Amino acid sequence: MHAARVTAHGKEHLDRQYGLLTAIAAEAGVSLSTVSKVVHRRRDVSGSTRSRVEELLTRHGYVRSWDPDPAEAQQIVAVFRDLSGPYTLEVVRGIVEAAGALGVDVVTGTIGARPISTWLQRCVSLRALGLIFVISMLTEDDQQRIVDQHLPVVLVDPLNAPTQDIPSIGVTNWSGARDAVQHLLGLGHTRIGMVAGRSHSLAGAARLHGYRAALDEAGIAYNPAFVRATDFDFGEALSASKHILRAEQPPTAIFAASDAQALGVLEAARQVGLSVPRDLAVMSFDDTLVAAMASPPLSAVRQPFEELGHEATRVLLQLTRGQSPASSRVELATQLVLRASTAAPRSVAVS
Amino acid sequence: MHAARVTAHGKEHLDRQYGLLTAIAAEAGVSLSTVSKVVHRRRDVSGSTRSRVEELLTRHGYVRSWDPDPAEAQQIVAVFRDLSGPYTLEVVRGIVEAAGALGVDVVTGTIGARPISTWLQRCVSLRALGLIFVISMLTEDDQQRIVDQHLPVVLVDPLNAPTQDIPSIGVTNWSGARDAVQHLLGLGHTRIGMVAGRSHSLAGAARLHGYRAALDEAGIAYNPAFVRATDFDFGEALSASKHILRAEQPPTAIFAASDAQALGVLEAARQVGLSVPRDLAVMSFDDTLVAAMASPPLSAVRQPFEELGHEATRVLLQLTRGQSPASSRVELATQLVLRASTAAPRSVAVS
Repeated sequence: MHAARVTAHGKEHLDRQYGLLTAIAAEAGVSLSTVSKVVHRRRDVSGSTRSRVEELLTRHGYVRSWDPDPAEAQQIVAVFRDLSGPYTLEVVRGIVEAAGALGVDVVTGTIGARPISTWLQRCVSLRALGLIFVISMLTEDDQQRIVDQHLPVVLVDPLNAPTQDIPSIGVTNWSGARDAVQHLLGLGHTRIGMVAGRSHSLAGAARLHGYRAALDEAGIAYNPAFVRATDFDFGEALSASKHILRAEQPPTAIFAASDAQALGVLEAARQVGLSVPRDLAVMSFDDTLVAAMASPPLSAVRQPFEELGHEATRVLLQLTRGQSPASSRVELATQLVLRASTAAPRSVAVS
Repeated sequence: MHAARVTAHGKEHLDRQYGLLTAIAAEAGVSLSTVSKVVHRRRDVSGSTRSRVEELLTRHGYVRSWDPDPAEAQQIVAVFRDLSGPYTLEVVRGIVEAAGALGVDVVTGTIGARPISTWLQRCVSLRALGLIFVISMLTEDDQQRIVDQHLPVVLVDPLNAPTQDIPSIGVTNWSGARDAVQHLLGLGHTRIGMVAGRSHSLAGAARLHGYRAALDEAGIAYNPAFVRATDFDFGEALSASKHILRAEQPPTAIFAASDAQALGVLEAARQVGLSVPRDLAVMSFDDTLVAAMASPPLSAVRQPFEELGHEATRVLLQLTRGQSPASSRVELATQLVLRASTAAPRSVAVS
């Protein structure tokens, strides 16, 4: 896969780098081979030469290619959009556990602390094995840089589909959502609302389409008054649910696109005086730690977080060894977990 | 502080290490100074000598002292008991954000993946700046090793009080709990239960004592039937609360020692048909992300997680520079956050 990555753009990049190193060698008064040794951190260069060359590399903005130290760098870098939701904790745990079992350490960071391009640089300077970006939005420049530097990168649940050949891992969002709604239909619900994710999120869009597919297949018309899109956020979902529940004939069940949103639905139900699941069935998506600790505990589509972390780490280490993954997009299967928040509607034939 | 750490035990340790290095020098047929260069990773030793000596160091179980590479090792290691509760996520975020702002990377791990002693070794071989252990139980051997190796270590919320001079950071558990119970008393509650932490946890014990102090000061006798100790766990707290609520004259308010336990109290109330806060006021401790997303949202004693992470990182970097912290135990102030789960009892004069 790396061989295939030497694109026309890549060739140009190599030519530029070569020109830069030649200029630095001349300026430092050393051979190109010495500059190359410093770039690759070989130890057979004197300390004073090393620091002179390093200083010129920095001054000229030379970008090192990824080049881990096989003896020391048993680290991967896991970068998150933020560390604020229950989803994040589950994925952190999945990656740290999988990496730990393989004897690899995990440097954890956020995009708030450093932009993606700086993390790419950092991975090179750390001589780390590679990077995992969780819920990220990679620009074309970021992607080109990954290809140019031959950086092993794996995306977990990217917000946008990568245009370059960068492996990504997620779950079966569409069919998981479809299963959830089919379960509600099976219980006898026909008026089913959804607190969906924003359409800029690939996962959010797939879950909404899964909901629509299940309704379609059951011959139930899509009712836009029953659907609101929000961030994967408690407060927004709370307002959205109260809005949905104000409909003249409100839904008897609501499917939320994430646990944080489902908790907002539970609180909306409490505020408008509906008992869950008697007056309103609530189905969630994620099954993070908060689902089982909700009141009532949430029925949810479970993302296999442990497997997600394991698979991301496994594919990353495969790339590190120069192997191509079998597929550049892997979707792991979700599973329906039933708890106390779902039940049949009080009367199956209400409307 | 490091100078003060060369105890009698430390002296013995140094003598042992010196004897070992002398023996290795003889076995490798090189000078003691060459062995010392390899130990300190100096680059003026040939590759073949380096690997011969490294191999002997490993075979003889030589333990390197902490010796970070000032040019490269801008990493700290944060080790958690596990990565499974909402508390953990808040502390991970606090540390990662504080370290990120200082340009330091965080290697995140768990004690499940490697025992503490192996993490101490790992910190040395990574040439990291130091370690933060969160909710840990350090043995005497671990502590001795930290002192012998001059390892910068900071403990966040340790389960046992360190016997050696190792700085620890936590929050004002006792006075935070006392504030919480005083608030319930101020609302008019007199029958107040507690789902406490286990007594082996320093934080758990302090919170229970804070509860008892507030009752004492109000002249209310401690009623053991109103108190159960559990892990900081939803399921255990659910059972414990149902038990407490079965009392002939059950409490009108329950104070939980953690958010996970408070969520268990909410679910117990739901299961026995009590409405929160009308029939039962619920007060929590932690104020992690789940408190605001509960139904109803939880009043809670807030731990200043961001500050906790910042302070732990700050003290660690201070130790790294060879400075002593002002105090070996820092307790950050908690704050009462009021939400919908607490209100006055329906009748202040029930019994």
